[in-house]
Parts: sequence; C-alpha cells; structure tokens
Amino acid sequence: MRVAVARETRPGETRVALVPELVPRLTGLGYAVAVEPDAGRGALHADEDYLEAGAEVVEAAWQDADLVVSVNPLDPAVVRRLRPGTATVSFLPAAASLDLVADLRDCGVTSFAMELVPRISRAQSMDALSSQSLVSGYRCAIVAAGLLRRFLPLNMTAAGTVPPAAVVVLGAGVAGLQAIATCKRLGAVVKAYDVRAAAAEEIRSVGAQAIDLELETLEGSGGYAREMSEDRAERQRRLLAPYVAAADALITTAAVPGRQAPLLVTADMVEHMAPGSVVVDLAAESGGNVEGSVPGKVVRIGAAQVWGGANVPGQMPGPASRLYAQNVVNLVTLMTRQASEDGGAAAFAPDFEDEIVTGSCVTHDGTVWHEPTRLALEGEAPR
Amino acid sequence: MRVAVARETRPGETRVALVPELVPRLTGLGYAVAVEPDAGRGALHADEDYLEAGAEVVEAAWQDADLVVSVNPLDPAVVRRLRPGTATVSFLPAAASLDLVADLRDCGVTSFAMELVPRISRAQSMDALSSQSLVSGYRCAIVAAGLLRRFLPLNMTAAGTVPPAAVVVLGAGVAGLQAIATCKRLGAVVKAYDVRAAAAEEIRSVGAQAIDLELETLEGSGGYAREMSEDRAERQRRLLAPYVAAADALITTAAVPGRQAPLLVTADMVEHMAPGSVVVDLAAESGGNVEGSVPGKVVRIGAAQVWGGANVPGQMPGPASRLYAQNVVNLVTLMTRQASEDGGAAAFAPDFEDEIVTGSCVTHDGTVWHEPTRLALEGEAPR
Repeated sequence: MRVAVARETRPGETRVALVPELVPRLTGLGYAVAVEPDAGRGALHADEDYLEAGAEVVEAAWQDADLVVSVNPLDPAVVRRLRPGTATVSFLPAAASLDLVADLRDCGVTSFAMELVPRISRAQSMDALSSQSLVSGYRCAIVAAGLLRRFLPLNMTAAGTVPPAAVVVLGAGVAGLQAIATCKRLGAVVKAYDVRAAAAEEIRSVGAQAIDLELETLEGSGGYAREMSEDRAERQRRLLAPYVAAADALITTAAVPGRQAPLLVTADMVEHMAPGSVVVDLAAESGGNVEGSVPGKVVRIGAAQVWGGANVPGQMPGPASRLYAQNVVNLVTLMTRQASEDGGAAAFAPDFEDEIVTGSCVTHDGTVWHEPTRLALEGEAPR
Repeated sequence: MRVAVARETRPGETRVALVPELVPRLTGLGYAVAVEPDAGRGALHADEDYLEAGAEVVEAAWQDADLVVSVNPLDPAVVRRLRPGTATVSFLPAAASLDLVADLRDCGVTSFAMELVPRISRAQSMDALSSQSLVSGYRCAIVAAGLLRRFLPLNMTAAGTVPPAAVVVLGAGVAGLQAIATCKRLGAVVKAYDVRAAAAEEIRSVGAQAIDLELETLEGSGGYAREMSEDRAERQRRLLAPYVAAADALITTAAVPGRQAPLLVTADMVEHMAPGSVVVDLAAESGGNVEGSVPGKVVRIGAAQVWGGANVPGQMPGPASRLYAQNVVNLVTLMTRQASEDGGAAAFAPDFEDEIVTGSCVTHDGTVWHEPTRLALEGEAPR
C-alpha cells in the first residue's frame, strides 16, 4: 500500500499534507510513503528530512499510489490520470468545485474532504478546520499587534502610564477564541461578540468581555453559526458600531466553511475608528467580514489600516502543516485495516458504516456520495 | 515665557517632543506653548489637537521661543538663527555632533541632552533613554513574533501538541527586559544573557532563564555595561554560539548610548540557526550586535531572516512620543521657577547647582559645559 504526498500547486500555498516527523506513523501502519520532490519546501522540510524519516522522494508519486494526501484538492489533470480506485484526502470545497467532483466521480476516485469530517468528539483529532483556525487566530492577533503602533499591554513607567490597547474580536469560533487569548496574553483589553449563544461563556473563559447586543442568537449545526436575515444583520451592525469605533484593533473571524462570510462591519463603521486603528479581516478571502478588505493586502479605510487575510494558516506553514498532517494521519489511521496475526496484510479500507467515513466522503465507486453536492451536480438546488 | 515644539526634520522621524495631552502641564507652569504646523503628524496628533489643548500653532515657532523642545537635535541652520540665551532640550549625542555643539556654543544657546540626564532615582521620570528603550524592547518582541512563522506559545490541541518557540535575548537592559517580558507573555521559552552581574536576577524576575557563561562580568557606570576586551568578546561569542544555534528567535539589544554596539553574534553563528529562524538586532543602527544586520531592512543570513532596527521607538510614535514628552515636561518642570505669591513671574531658570541640570547640560553661556565634549572639541582625547 502506497501513500503519496502531493506537492501543492496552488499559488502561494506553503503547507504540505505530511511532515517528516509523522512519516513513521504511516510506515508503522504498513504504508510505503512517497513524497513529491520539494513538497515540504514551503514549510521548510527538505526532501532529505523525508528520506531520513523513511519516505521515498518520487516525482509524480500519485501515479502508483493507493492514497494521495494533499492540502488543496489535486489538479484536474492529475485526477484524470489517477488509477480507478485511488483514494484522496484533502480539503475539498465540494459545492464550489463541481467540475472537479465530476472528474473524481468519473475517474472512480474515492475522495474525502477534510472540511466534511463530522464535528463529533471521536473525530476531534481529525478536525483540520479547527487546527487551521487555531493557527489563523494566533496569526491574526500577532498581525494586529504588529500593525498597531502602540502597546497592547498597560505600561506603567517612571514617566507615567500608557493605557492598554482596546481590541474587539467579532466571531468567537476556534480562530476568534485563539485571537482573543493571544491578545489577552499580550495584555490588551478585549471585547468579543458572536451570534451563537454558547459563545459568551467561551469568550469569558479566555478572559475577554462578551458583548451582549440583546439580539436573538443564531445557533447552527456542528457548532457553527447559521445565516442571519438582512434585517438582523443591519441591526447587529448598528449595535456593533460604537464598539468598533472605540477599538484600537478590530479582528474579525466570522466565517462558515463553504459559505460567503457575513458582512459584519461596513466601511462607514471603520471610518469612525480613530487614526492609527487597525482592522484584521480573517474572512477577506470568502467575501470579507469588513467591507472593503482585500485578501493579501493592507488597505486604508478612513484613518484605519485594514489587513485582509489570504491563506492565513499558510503564513505559519510549519505548525499549520504539522497540525494538518496530524489530522490527516489520524483520519487515515481510522480508515486503515491493521495487519492481522494470521498474515492478513494491512490495507486502506474505509468502513462505510462509520459516520466519519461516510460524512467526509465526497465521491466513491463512480458516484457522488455527498448528497448536497450530488444534487447540485444533477442540477437541483443544494439542500 | 514661550516653549516651542519643533517639527522634526530627520528623515523617517515620526515622534514629536510634546503631545497635546501634556500641553496643559506646561501652560499650567506659566508657559505659552507654540507648536510648529504638522509637528505631531507622524504621531497622529493633528494641529487641531494642540490648539484644543491650549497651544498655538506657529511656523518657525523657535524664532521667539525661550525654550525649544525636540526629539532630535535642531538643524544647524535653525540653531544659528536662535536668539542668544535660548534653551534647547532634545536628544543630543554630543560626542558625535561636535560641529553642532560648536554652533550651540557660539550662538549662546543653553542646550540640554536627554541622554545625559543622570541615572539617579530623582531623575527616573526624565530618563528618555529608558522610556524609548521600553518601546523598542516591546517592538522587537512583536517584530520577532511576526517574522517567526510559528507559535510562540505551547499549543495543545486535539490533534497533538506544538512546542513553544525558543527565544534568546542578548542584552538585558530596559529594552532587553521588555523584550523578554513580552515574549514570555506570548508563552515562549526565553533565555537571556547580559554581561552585567546584576542582570541575572532581573532576567529571572521577568521569567526568563539567565544564561551563565562563567565569564567575568562587566559592570559599568550608570547601570550600563562597560566595554570588553576583544579576547573576552571572542570567548563570549564562542560560548554563546550553541544558544544562538538552538534559538528560533534571537533578539539582541546590547547598546550603550554614544558608543559602537558590541558585536555579539557573527554571521557564522547565525548560519548555524535552523531554517525559519529569526534575528532581531535592535542595535543595527549603532554598528549592530549581529554581523551583517542592516538598519531598516530584513536580510537573509544562512537560513535566518535578520531584521535590523532603524529608529525603533519611532515605529510606535504614539507611545514613544507620549513617554518622551513626559520625560521632557518633567525635566522642564525641574528647571522652572514657579510664579511666587508676591508677583514674581514664572521663569525657565535651571539651577546650575542641581546635578540633573549640570549633568544634562551640553552648552551654556558661550561655553561647552559637558567636559568630554569640550575636550574633544579642543582636540584632546575624550576621557
């Protein structure tokens, strides 16, 4: 059984789906591991590191692999050359990649999407959305601290006192909570808001003040928020405006995978911020929580600098890759039948009775397994 | 009595010697305060803010001022047009500015250098070197955290654990201690070294491990280190090499005002750092603690990114200006004779019996007051 580690081809991608440190986890299961040359380069893992860890380094390693692991979906050209029955594990935004899903189906590829791994406790160690959000949240706080030309902590000196910075965090999922915790570590005064009822306690648990707008909460499935009406969104923006105006730094992290990010903050709200203020919009790539933010750029809105995130986990490729690889290895381990004492070989054999397997599967055996995607492909509206 | 606040002219200077918030401190002493247009711009203080605080905004405000305050020394062209008897308060690296000192003397200007304020407890609130180092030290830590593409804190997740970053800080004065404290806040494992004996305890007091090289210590005057022999420097570098090689981030802050910074780390030592390592050299402008660092630039040495500081306090112009202004106002207050009940007007009247006044004075009444500078000007070697 061979696992191939793809060299990522998306522009700007620095991560890799397997780090050398975790190669032994797979070889220990009975896999041969083949890594494409330079696959780990962006994450500062040299080919030699993989060789030392027990992997081979092979160009087009996917050609004779049973399983191909990657961060981003494979290129369509690669998919079309996979042997039928090959499995893939990667992020795979199915609803937004219908052509690729059709290719995977037609080529008989069994594909698993990391973002579809169910949010149940048994699958926590495979939750790549959470692990990458952890990295993003930390990074957002560090970026805000770097852009902000003042202290985050209170400073008491012989000459006098400099007050701490006021940080507002919108969205208190994994990324938001990590951003809050990091800003708190640095000594900032942090207030945070999330539309979910459960969030207030989590916000307080990491040391921030939970903003209460006295609006109805919007608990969705899987711990994510559900979408809100435009009327509620408008009231929410109006109520948030004074908090935004009073912030030295605003960090927005409200994103739901596969959906357009909600517009939480208008350009007008940013224009009411004081000179030198900083906005960090983690959701810039999926439409932006902040009107006018641009992915990968710092733009000026009013007197504030507005930073738009672009592949934010990829800005810390070492830890992001390591955590992602741990998620992937844990998922692959679940899908592997161990070698048996009576000589049965180990095999990649996902159990299609297991809700983690069925939940994360996009295509299998010539069919689209993920029902919303199948319906979308058949021209019906997704559920 | 008029105090003028100069608009800084040094390229890249963002600070200002007086912030609007502190204008009332001076007007309360009986001064009229005149600020040059746009003087506060780099620190995000608008002319209107000064007006509201009770100052005037006047072009060439120094023309009829009794006292001119600035961050950097005034331009020679301005000095030559000051009225005899005018006083100036600014940073003034006298030994490196002999021509300017001669101008100040010949024009009958009474000049005070903030870096010469004695390091005695009564003058702590006037210690601008310390206040600016506080800003620099914080900034160095934030810059290191931003350049380092990994977590500073330990992260324990469902998928596994990411170890904390290892930071080494060389030089544990005000800037070094602040850098240590900030990295500790962020959760890094910090080790630090300073040639002064007293430093080890201070290093431990902010939570870092004090590196003991078992070399003789080099306690100098005023809390600064004294210079070391080339032989000791060489042994020190050899002993520090393994600490540098093991660091994810190295922050160097060893600088003594008015002197060339000691070379603590050779390029060869940096080349032994792991890929992705980061070096922050606060002393780059004064020759550099790290061989090859370039002020204002990030250069690559081996597999490390090396950031060279350039006007680092000016990278946080708001707090740096505020703290500097507090230092200046405290010094000016000391030098002001309050209005008396029997109608005597308030006056700028430095008491030349006071060691803070005599210690910080560079020129007065047509003579060079600061003896090392006077000797240097007379062509003799400075003490």
